[in-house]
Amino acid sequence: MSSRLIAVYHVRSDARAIDSRANAIAVEQSVEMPLSAIEDQSILDEIVGKVEDISDLGNGVFAVRIALSADTIGTDPGQLINMLFGNTSLQDDVTLHDAEFPDDLARTWQGPHHGLAGLRERTGIKGRAFTCTALKPQGLAPERLAELAARFARGGIDYIKDDHGLADQNYSRFTRRVEAITAALREVERETGHRARYVPSVTGTLDAAQGYVIEARKAGLDTVMVQPMILGLSNFQHLTLFNPMVAFFAHPALAGASRIAPALLFGKIFRMLGADTIVFPNHGGRFGYSPDTCRDIARTALGPWHGLQGAVPVPAGGMSRERVPEMLDFYGPDVMLLIGGALLDARERLTDETAAFVAEVKGYRYG
Amino acid sequence: MSSRLIAVYHVRSDARAIDSRANAIAVEQSVEMPLSAIEDQSILDEIVGKVEDISDLGNGVFAVRIALSADTIGTDPGQLINMLFGNTSLQDDVTLHDAEFPDDLARTWQGPHHGLAGLRERTGIKGRAFTCTALKPQGLAPERLAELAARFARGGIDYIKDDHGLADQNYSRFTRRVEAITAALREVERETGHRARYVPSVTGTLDAAQGYVIEARKAGLDTVMVQPMILGLSNFQHLTLFNPMVAFFAHPALAGASRIAPALLFGKIFRMLGADTIVFPNHGGRFGYSPDTCRDIARTALGPWHGLQGAVPVPAGGMSRERVPEMLDFYGPDVMLLIGGALLDARERLTDETAAFVAEVKGYRYG
Repeated sequence: MSSRLIAVYHVRSDARAIDSRANAIAVEQSVEMPLSAIEDQSILDEIVGKVEDISDLGNGVFAVRIALSADTIGTDPGQLINMLFGNTSLQDDVTLHDAEFPDDLARTWQGPHHGLAGLRERTGIKGRAFTCTALKPQGLAPERLAELAARFARGGIDYIKDDHGLADQNYSRFTRRVEAITAALREVERETGHRARYVPSVTGTLDAAQGYVIEARKAGLDTVMVQPMILGLSNFQHLTLFNPMVAFFAHPALAGASRIAPALLFGKIFRMLGADTIVFPNHGGRFGYSPDTCRDIARTALGPWHGLQGAVPVPAGGMSRERVPEMLDFYGPDVMLLIGGALLDARERLTDETAAFVAEVKGYRYG
Repeated sequence: MSSRLIAVYHVRSDARAIDSRANAIAVEQSVEMPLSAIEDQSILDEIVGKVEDISDLGNGVFAVRIALSADTIGTDPGQLINMLFGNTSLQDDVTLHDAEFPDDLARTWQGPHHGLAGLRERTGIKGRAFTCTALKPQGLAPERLAELAARFARGGIDYIKDDHGLADQNYSRFTRRVEAITAALREVERETGHRARYVPSVTGTLDAAQGYVIEARKAGLDTVMVQPMILGLSNFQHLTLFNPMVAFFAHPALAGASRIAPALLFGKIFRMLGADTIVFPNHGGRFGYSPDTCRDIARTALGPWHGLQGAVPVPAGGMSRERVPEMLDFYGPDVMLLIGGALLDARERLTDETAAFVAEVKGYRYG
């Protein structure tokens, strides 16, 4: 039999109907037609999805394990998500809970070029968490964003990423923004010796995004941010493959988390396709993820998996300096802490507040 | 004030919390930071989202209308969905229910190049529904798919689309498939005079998809199918813009319908970006859409809207010949009926069953 991956769905159903519902999902995610109409035995044997296990999770929810043929996917990441959840995403009694990949499939796209180990080597940061902040609000001109970036850099921050809303708008063209911010950060580096890394958000079509990556490289940057679910997974992977010197932050926009389990989408799929860091909503912030979900994301992104580099978890979304010790306690040192709005809210004290954030992370003693 | 679009969210909340929840969404989908940290009055006035109305829909659900600045979007479709639902898609108490666009924004991407009027002109089919079927299962070699296509064509079908699982797999390479199927359909046309149109599914990265469109054009095809949510909306629009002679079928894979209202996503956004036909799950089939949802999708796709061409609704997903009169009664003549598996299930009678489907559609008298 050809190579198989396992998709694990959580299905709301009554107990009497779950067998037929599980078989219907197996058909939907493979041949999508009545099996009675299939004349070819090899397709029935090799291509049709097979229900491998059904277990009752209680409260009317069942875990259904379905084996899918890896041949239906080939090497296209878009086809991977299509076969895992394309049509079934339209059925609201099902979430895609997890997937297990045969080794050759998991390694098809090579995973992060840099990941945790690469970011540590590149920055020289060992044994502690990375620090990160976000440039915002939308609507500021490049020069104003550059001033903010310089003030963050004077506070000693490691990474400064674009807010995910910054794109190539009239009020802040990508090219002008990259020029202004890199110039400002070089100036701070000359003065203080500290190099903060700017991470611009690359958006648009694949071709536009590749153009932005080239501009970022020309400006001396080595990291960019992408929103894989908006760019499209095939295009995201293409960008990482053809820009091996660049580290990629993956942003979760449009990831519709309630229908695809975040540990699978961010920790496995984004990583598998080349994300070096994984930005996700931390528990207790503006989003509804539980501590367990967040721990799963971080463990999945970092853990040994098919020989791929670990991707750095970046819990974010309404974090503040007060939460630093608790977050480091929770995640340990292999993490990037991202505080945006709360630092900006310090206004004229932004640099001091950034420095306090950085000092807290640098001074923390891991248990 | 700059141009604004209106996003309408449905939010689960208790009545006491809805004001602050609505304001939080307005901030999340615009500046994504504490307003207290914004010094620039023009950003507070122009860029920050504004809650325009909250109405109680009952059962703990509220409709929240939020005005968003069109300047944050520019001309990038990925940025459109990012600003409408990027981060909020991660919050499971919210669905994106609808959006209203200022005229200049709705016309930015020009909509369907062909749409209903173009497909009628191109095919010469007037005053009746179009007929369509799907080639499957996955795993069949190109020659076998071509045999099926020929049998459908002998039955007089108008359009034959790829199953959305067909991509560029080892067992059925795109190029070989297009060659084999177009050759088979030309042969049927020579014999019978009937030209059935083959609609291959184009997948992969933007560049790969563009390559497939070129191959399809070289083979004499004038229609292709795309999965916009998997390709990425920016890339989808780019394809439609640069291939104005090609009609585009939009397939709903990965559209996660419970979080974005289908009438908005399919009927407005896919149409706005250039979809000529809109494939969606019909009520009473394998998916959970209600008749009201389906009627909304069809009306939205076809209705007068910012001067754009109407897109042809294609209700599908487990349809059968028995349902033809009811569906034509429900949708009227401006529709494409798509029956796949049920025709294939006729096996050796496939051509006869197709001919009966076609005769039923041609002979139907609209009330």
